Amino acid sequence: DDNLKVFTLNSNKDLAHEITDHIGLEMGKTSVDRFSDGEVQINIEESIRGCDIYVIQSTCQPANEHIMELLIMIDALKRASANTINVVIPYYGYARQDRKARSREPITAKLVANLLETAGATRVITLDLHATQIQGFFDIPVDQLVGVPILADYFQEKNLQDIVIVSPDHGGVVRARKMADRLKAPIAIIDKRRPKPNVSEVMNIVGNIEGKTAIIIDDIIDTAGTVTLAANAMVENGAKEVYACCTHPVLSGPAIERIQHSKIKELVVTNSIPLSEEKKIDKITQLSVGPLLGKAIIHVHEQRSVSELFN
Amino acid sequence: DDNLKVFTLNSNKDLAHEITDHIGLEMGKTSVDRFSDGEVQINIEESIRGCDIYVIQSTCQPANEHIMELLIMIDALKRASANTINVVIPYYGYARQDRKARSREPITAKLVANLLETAGATRVITLDLHATQIQGFFDIPVDQLVGVPILADYFQEKNLQDIVIVSPDHGGVVRARKMADRLKAPIAIIDKRRPKPNVSEVMNIVGNIEGKTAIIIDDIIDTAGTVTLAANAMVENGAKEVYACCTHPVLSGPAIERIQHSKIKELVVTNSIPLSEEKKIDKITQLSVGPLLGKAIIHVHEQRSVSELFN
Ligand SMILES: Nc1ncnc2c1ncn2[C@@H]1O[C@H](COP(=O)(O)O)[C@@H](O)[C@H]1O
Ligand SMILES: Nc1ncnc2c1ncn2[C@@H]1O[C@H](COP(=O)(O)O)[C@@H](O)[C@H]1O
Repeated sequence: DDNLKVFTLNSNKDLAHEITDHIGLEMGKTSVDRFSDGEVQINIEESIRGCDIYVIQSTCQPANEHIMELLIMIDALKRASANTINVVIPYYGYARQDRKARSREPITAKLVANLLETAGATRVITLDLHATQIQGFFDIPVDQLVGVPILADYFQEKNLQDIVIVSPDHGGVVRARKMADRLKAPIAIIDKRRPKPNVSEVMNIVGNIEGKTAIIIDDIIDTAGTVTLAANAMVENGAKEVYACCTHPVLSGPAIERIQHSKIKELVVTNSIPLSEEKKIDKITQLSVGPLLGKAIIHVHEQRSVSELFN
Repeated sequence: DDNLKVFTLNSNKDLAHEITDHIGLEMGKTSVDRFSDGEVQINIEESIRGCDIYVIQSTCQPANEHIMELLIMIDALKRASANTINVVIPYYGYARQDRKARSREPITAKLVANLLETAGATRVITLDLHATQIQGFFDIPVDQLVGVPILADYFQEKNLQDIVIVSPDHGGVVRARKMADRLKAPIAIIDKRRPKPNVSEVMNIVGNIEGKTAIIIDDIIDTAGTVTLAANAMVENGAKEVYACCTHPVLSGPAIERIQHSKIKELVVTNSIPLSEEKKIDKITQLSVGPLLGKAIIHVHEQRSVSELFN
């Protein structure tokens, strides 16, 4: 199909190439560079008039650079008469700033949605939004893909016995339930409570983990505080061994050190965010969402629903 | 006036404090920080309900960080029920990306204008836009201040004899003319021509500079290639000595080294962009636009025109 073109920006080029390989398409020609003063310099180096464009960009760290690259690319595509501008955002940054937790805070997840529409995006394809409500921040169609099947399939093949799927907090129970259904396993929930203000949190485990292989699942692992404390609590409470998994390996600050020194046997993540060299440690296994995103692009382009991709 | 509040972001805090000092106001309380993964974390730490807010931020290097800080701050102010959100942008980054010089380029100066309005800015106060047309990129009021009087006053006080004001290109003639009028001096223009494609440019000087003190004026000095070549051409063509000045000292890449090794005796700039320590060399004099911007805020707040500030 001559009308379908895929372009990548700088956040996640390897994934973007896996996507074009899956579709069987050459990567669209651009240069995405910086002027001497650090301003983004974009040139689209082939005609795209009337084409349906898919731009691959995770808005991972450095989020502000990656967001501006994406907005400027959308602007250039719009002015070059693209027919549709579909932005594929495997990791949607700022998703945790999705409500006013305190007075006078921004809601940056909504701001970014508005910015993408203002620039000229006509559709968003994304993966495991931190809160599903973020779909409603957009007035353009949003296709949300799900990482659970990819993570579940990996554990299925490991053939682990007597497993329990663990949600590290109440917000993640729906995700843990989905994973548990796929693996035909029970779930457990870590119930954090602060008995009194200024008293440290108590980790109470709801569900039976005694002698079992625990798999903790979360959407984002950032500084890895939550997941490593959870893993250690699992072991203290009699779990046989502990795995962890998530879709988006943000892994900032002390994350890698915490994971290294934790009771986690293996951490399984996707490549929605690339791992820099120092993050590629033995304990971490990275699975590709390239085929999933490639299929999603084909489905969207053929005007078919993407939901069959993860049901 | 209790309704007027000024806040600063991270690009130009010293200038922001000069502005509040000039107005006689305390700086608004905020924290503008980064989460562990580099995402902007903003908290406005005083009530601003119903207030007229002025936010000081140059979108200088790193432009993308500074733009996102500004957009997120505007979002937070809007949600906290500010009455008006006036953004004071002493240096408007991306101003050189103001037209499609080649096919399929973005027009980022327009994109940024749209982003600011989408976030919720109600007015822009800025200084020496690279192209005045950028005012028209906004659908909200734009007050544009002018740096020429501040630069001209400095040279006036130096009491230099037999001066000529030099525009380094045809685009800068109007600015050079304004400076020349203030200093009651003639002008000269550097007329760059490429005789044939792939033949290097010829610098032809239009106007009499023989034995004179030349003052080159530009809006932005970025890598300093243009201004240092111009200065050297002046001296080769008989100028007695050469000064240079500009409003916005971007000074990226080889700029400082080029200025050091050039025939420029002194470079006079404003603090629309702060100078990092390694840019504070003896040859460079920095003048403050704090009082000008302070006055402009008072004028705007009192619903008076700002044009009398530079006529
Ligand atoms: N990039 C970030 N890193 C850490 N915390 C964040 C980030 N963005 C937002 N937050 C905070 O995370 C909280 C929301 O997280 P959650 O409860 O997991 O949805 C809010 O209090 C936010 O202020
Ligand atoms: N940050 C930048 N640094 C250097 N050149 C730029 C920058 N932004 C835009 N340009 C280019 O500068 C040219 C416009 O400059 P001018 O002719 O001085 O208005 C265009 O060709 C732009 O592609």
